[in-house]
Amino acid sequence: MRSTMQFRVRYQETDQMGIVHHSVYFIWFEMGRTELMRERNLSYRECETRGWLLPLVESGAQYINPARYDDLIELETEMVLDKGAAFVFNYVVRNAVDHQILAKGFTKHVCVNREFKIDKQATKELKELFQL
Amino acid sequence: MRSTMQFRVRYQETDQMGIVHHSVYFIWFEMGRTELMRERNLSYRECETRGWLLPLVESGAQYINPARYDDLIELETEMVLDKGAAFVFNYVVRNAVDHQILAKGFTKHVCVNREFKIDKQATKELKELFQL
Amino acid sequence: MRSTMQFRVRYQETDQMGIVHHSVYFIWFEMGRTELMRERNLSYRECETRGWLLPLVESGAQYINPARYDDLIELETEMVLDKGAAFVFNYVVRNAVDHQILAKGFTKHVCVNREFKIDKQATKELKELFQL
Amino acid sequence: MRSTMQFRVRYQETDQMGIVHHSVYFIWFEMGRTELMRERNLSYRECETRGWLLPLVESGAQYINPARYDDLIELETEMVLDKGAAFVFNYVVRNAVDHQILAKGFTKHVCVNREFKIDKQATKELKELFQL
Repeated sequence: MRSTMQFRVRYQETDQMGIVHHSVYFIWFEMGRTELMRERNLSYRECETRGWLLPLVESGAQYINPARYDDLIELETEMVLDKGAAFVFNYVVRNAVDHQILAKGFTKHVCVNREFKIDKQATKELKELFQL
Repeated sequence: MRSTMQFRVRYQETDQMGIVHHSVYFIWFEMGRTELMRERNLSYRECETRGWLLPLVESGAQYINPARYDDLIELETEMVLDKGAAFVFNYVVRNAVDHQILAKGFTKHVCVNREFKIDKQATKELKELFQL
Repeated sequence: MRSTMQFRVRYQETDQMGIVHHSVYFIWFEMGRTELMRERNLSYRECETRGWLLPLVESGAQYINPARYDDLIELETEMVLDKGAAFVFNYVVRNAVDHQILAKGFTKHVCVNREFKIDKQATKELKELFQL
Repeated sequence: MRSTMQFRVRYQETDQMGIVHHSVYFIWFEMGRTELMRERNLSYRECETRGWLLPLVESGAQYINPARYDDLIELETEMVLDKGAAFVFNYVVRNAVDHQILAKGFTKHVCVNREFKIDKQATKELKELFQL
């Protein structure tokens, strides 16, 4: 279960080091999840309308090579299916022109309701939908 | 009706030009509104709890001198009282050390309910609270 | 001299009001400028490599209808040619599906060197390149 | 080697889930590093002036309880001294009122020059300065 998307680095995403700020990768990862879910006919927008939220419980990234303003970026998002309650996504960020790996990362989520309580029924349904 | 606050420029707020990105000033202005309202015993957090939202209908800024990472910033926020339906705030951003003016701006707001419809009663009450 | 681009609203671009934060429009405007310049074979990236920076001296926006997470956005960027030293761009943000106008804005720039001094020669050359 | 600072959650830092966006914690961590270094009389601003950059090679965070708009936050930053080439910082984010832990994280850095090459001499000097 993989999804790939391309986009350009925005000027605002750089910092005075002349490279993309490390916090921005997590914003990109979120775009990757949105597209992966859309491709599964499971838009995250609709999840939230149903009252299913997927907040993060953990995140991590390795920064391998800097990304720069106007670079064309290729983001690969993969969902890791497991039997536990968590939803895990892995990400690889590449320069879309020379395919150099820029960063790798992951995010781990749980499914909660609007009161931020774990929603076991929604977790089960969502896991099934992801596996279709 | 004025309020002054100080804070330091965050690294992430800079861009590769080596200065604070122009969009950041609007985030600072929002901090200024929050503090001005708190000083009036009218926390914006509580406004939202009551269902009173104050989205922007207009904004503007003039960038006079660049702000840089780690600069100590002084932000002056002023509320402009008028009889119309809108709420207008003016802002002046200075370097807190040499008092040089870095930027000026304004934001114009209306008071709406959670469905983003103008709330005339809330507007009236809020205007009165601001004038106390 | 116009350019149009489409993109989706990122989750991180929303705030707790459930709509796109007003500061984000200026980040989108910047993407519009980047694409307009690229279409003129005048990449902003290359401008900076030559030592020509285009910082903002003024900005403004009107927020007409809220943009929401995952909305497909259409951004139209227009450069306004005039004889003065400034470079002015106008922007219109629409929902790409129903073409409703979400916001309008402008940014005004000057061309400076790395020391943030007005560069008259670069201004002249850049104005000519824009007019080709 | 610890440093503690307090600040309030900005409205723009929230997303439509009504909580602070997970990417924002890395921006806060960066503020924590800035203050810890300042307390060691080793401002990061000055490091960059000397041509010593400290980009991230790795980051991670655990999100334990959500932070909300206007919450007063307490950030504890600790530098982990080791003999290797990397600089590691650990962070704990608490609600400053009830001291509930909101998040924990770490960042790992290397010291490079302006060409993003590892600077062994600067690494050595910086390590010594941190240990004074």
